[in-house]
Amino acid sequence: MQSSTIFLSSVRSVLTPATERGSMATSSNGPKWAQKTITLPPQRRGCHLITPKILKEIGQDLSGFNCGLAHVFLQHTSASLTINENYDPDVQADTETFLNRIVPEGSSAPWRHTMEGPDDMPAHIKSSMFGCQLTIPITKGKLNMGTWQGIWLCEHRDDPTARRVVVTLNGI
Amino acid sequence: MQSSTIFLSSVRSVLTPATERGSMATSSNGPKWAQKTITLPPQRRGCHLITPKILKEIGQDLSGFNCGLAHVFLQHTSASLTINENYDPDVQADTETFLNRIVPEGSSAPWRHTMEGPDDMPAHIKSSMFGCQLTIPITKGKLNMGTWQGIWLCEHRDDPTARRVVVTLNGI
Amino acid sequence: MQSSTIFLSSVRSVLTPATERGSMATSSNGPKWAQKTITLPPQRRGCHLITPKILKEIGQDLSGFNCGLAHVFLQHTSASLTINENYDPDVQADTETFLNRIVPEGSSAPWRHTMEGPDDMPAHIKSSMFGCQLTIPITKGKLNMGTWQGIWLCEHRDDPTARRVVVTLNGI
Repeated sequence: MQSSTIFLSSVRSVLTPATERGSMATSSNGPKWAQKTITLPPQRRGCHLITPKILKEIGQDLSGFNCGLAHVFLQHTSASLTINENYDPDVQADTETFLNRIVPEGSSAPWRHTMEGPDDMPAHIKSSMFGCQLTIPITKGKLNMGTWQGIWLCEHRDDPTARRVVVTLNGI
Repeated sequence: MQSSTIFLSSVRSVLTPATERGSMATSSNGPKWAQKTITLPPQRRGCHLITPKILKEIGQDLSGFNCGLAHVFLQHTSASLTINENYDPDVQADTETFLNRIVPEGSSAPWRHTMEGPDDMPAHIKSSMFGCQLTIPITKGKLNMGTWQGIWLCEHRDDPTARRVVVTLNGI
Repeated sequence: MQSSTIFLSSVRSVLTPATERGSMATSSNGPKWAQKTITLPPQRRGCHLITPKILKEIGQDLSGFNCGLAHVFLQHTSASLTINENYDPDVQADTETFLNRIVPEGSSAPWRHTMEGPDDMPAHIKSSMFGCQLTIPITKGKLNMGTWQGIWLCEHRDDPTARRVVVTLNGI
């Protein structure tokens, strides 16, 4: 295991005080907080890449943070947030296929909670499987995700509704 | 996609400095930290709404934060934390049904790790599926969850034991 | 439900100002940030305990935080991070068995995304099931996990590649 010296070099230039080579970059200067609620438009059942939509809303504020964390929280129990491929839409389609295979739906399903439609209880289960919250590192004013990573909103209901996401930024 | 202007208005009143309409509310004033370990009493196998228990322990401290994050961490590998429906207990029962269907248990199960009982290895798997940690936004002294969201402790063992949760609050 | 008074006692000694018995320990002194990218060496497909490797890289910096949060973020979409048993390697083997049972692979699998090999789409699904990010409380200079908890890197691809992890520490 090796430290990423390239990354450490770049951090050293933005954080103060500068630290010795090989140790973590640290700073006690000026922590900041920012928080915003974003309403995402209704999307059909399935997995959707929403990185551009999130960045459009928070990109300007994000640029003010050299080092920190971005927290993304979905205020719903029948959809989910996850991080996965940002390139091939087939990955999104296959993930939806998987979720539908693993969580039974319709008359053969064993659910008690059926009042809100056959897709409702499966949606709750899928929401807990993937979760409703993500925390992503911020480095030099950007979300520090891997090359192929993107933020997905997974809509588990058949009837599209708008979804609210609370984004909280914290850092220096 | 639209910003939630109603939300921004309310944040503007509690965070300083006030920010222009449409951008995120930010502040660099007085970050605070608080941390507490809560011991939850033994609960039977299944999913349990614990929001009231958590709020009873942290509510007073929470009220001191205008903007921040609450981190809830379960110190165990055979139970889990998730956010889901806070209203109909059938959703909890159905989620337990799902977990038991998806993770085989008993003589037909393929597990090597069996010394601690037939429910132990399935409990470990369920723990990783739902996870042991949640981060929830704090806004104006309250957990900023959606109307129907609640915190669940999912107990995956048959023999009830007390469970420890470390809650960490950070914000302004 | 009872507060962990033993824990509160120990926190009281390290955080300022001291707080009255039974309430949360709080402080507004000197927030710090630290961030480091760690490159983990290639590991075979399966679940691997990486707590020692992570601590070797961040342990010295961690010791400077009395109270805080450690965020661990994997920059990949075909591996995952989770917290589970740190003792019996059979738990890791059984978890890998479970993942392979639940996500079909090979000619009978329904995936469209197959260009990168039969283990690729299953790897993406497993990555979203367990997730790529963990947040762990820091207390008195150490990760405040339970006795049996450890950090796992779950490698879902057959061909081993190095994996990058961004660790962000924040606290007082």
